[in-house]
Amino acid sequence: MSIRIAPSILSADFGRLEAEIQSASSADLVHVDVMDNHFVPNLTLGLPVVKRIAEVSPMPLDVHLMIEDPDAWAPRYAEVGATSVTYHFEAATNAAQVAKDIRSTGARAAVAIKPATPAEAVFDLLTVVDMVLVMTVEPGFGGQAFMPHVLPKLALLREAATQAGTDLWLEVDGGISADTISQAVAAGADTLVAGSAVFDQADRAAAIAALREAAVPA
Amino acid sequence: MSIRIAPSILSADFGRLEAEIQSASSADLVHVDVMDNHFVPNLTLGLPVVKRIAEVSPMPLDVHLMIEDPDAWAPRYAEVGATSVTYHFEAATNAAQVAKDIRSTGARAAVAIKPATPAEAVFDLLTVVDMVLVMTVEPGFGGQAFMPHVLPKLALLREAATQAGTDLWLEVDGGISADTISQAVAAGADTLVAGSAVFDQADRAAAIAALREAAVPA
Repeated sequence: MSIRIAPSILSADFGRLEAEIQSASSADLVHVDVMDNHFVPNLTLGLPVVKRIAEVSPMPLDVHLMIEDPDAWAPRYAEVGATSVTYHFEAATNAAQVAKDIRSTGARAAVAIKPATPAEAVFDLLTVVDMVLVMTVEPGFGGQAFMPHVLPKLALLREAATQAGTDLWLEVDGGISADTISQAVAAGADTLVAGSAVFDQADRAAAIAALREAAVPA
Repeated sequence: MSIRIAPSILSADFGRLEAEIQSASSADLVHVDVMDNHFVPNLTLGLPVVKRIAEVSPMPLDVHLMIEDPDAWAPRYAEVGATSVTYHFEAATNAAQVAKDIRSTGARAAVAIKPATPAEAVFDLLTVVDMVLVMTVEPGFGGQAFMPHVLPKLALLREAATQAGTDLWLEVDGGISADTISQAVAAGADTLVAGSAVFDQADRAAAIAALREAAVPA
């Protein structure tokens, strides 16, 4: 099974983002958390910062929009260089149209669900998205504890996708570390966001290698 | 007359903010534009980024909140290290209380008005704030053209402050360059935000010196 590691710059040094992203270049993606003080009670960074990150990152950008009105904003993030744009099901007015609008730019579309949102809520979207993100913490802040009780959603999503005849990436975000990653992978996740587990470590390449090793126990 | 130059990092390289801020250290303040996609149609950066900038900046932080609900958020920016926190009159529920809450942290409080908001709107606040910011463009984006027609507000604010027996800084933000700065200073501004006029120049110290020289014609 192919595993993708996506370090989240929410845990990086915002004073030197380019160097921080370079230090994690052995990862598969770089995960960028966009928050607007409204969908979640935190404000991180937005379009002009993502545009610059896209210009300097050696890795594809996995942008996670924790914002209201993704209907209007999601395609803009694809246009400035995101390889994948994830919007929240709970925030979208027309969730299928958002996915189509993202894809029309050439980017991958992904839909995210908060811990309280059931997998079934996005079954109708599985043929129009390229990835589903299952939040394993409440969105809004880094450094939170992993919620294993949401992991059964991953098997439900995989089964529904197979029945719909489509292939998907399944991503988890929140509390992923060398201690929790194998649970997430065993439950069906193939794309793993990790913030403090990468950027709180001095040697980011070693931290990423440790996550890969822990992801699939021998 | 003492003039303060406040380079706005909205025009800086977001991949290397610490180095960008260091490059402008001959300025008096560093201006940080916080936007939330709601008060203005742009999302820039927020609390965790401002916290880090405060840790690494050699200059005091002049934070400009273009966000909804400054009543809740403004004191938080002071707590993470802003020397001055500016909120918008148009966004505040209880504008006087926001100023008091900012000051209670030890930071300077400032109130901003958009181009369409008259100076008189904030006359009642002049004894509870340390600065008024008169926007010389519509807030939301860098690189816009200067609006000289708003400058008469500065004299009205200075006169009202004098009558109220208080001393204030008067800041302008938007379209300030070596070509426009003398108009703003002649109209009464003493604190000048400049974005592209500093960060679009290769030599930031020279750009800041040129603004100082242009500010008060011989």
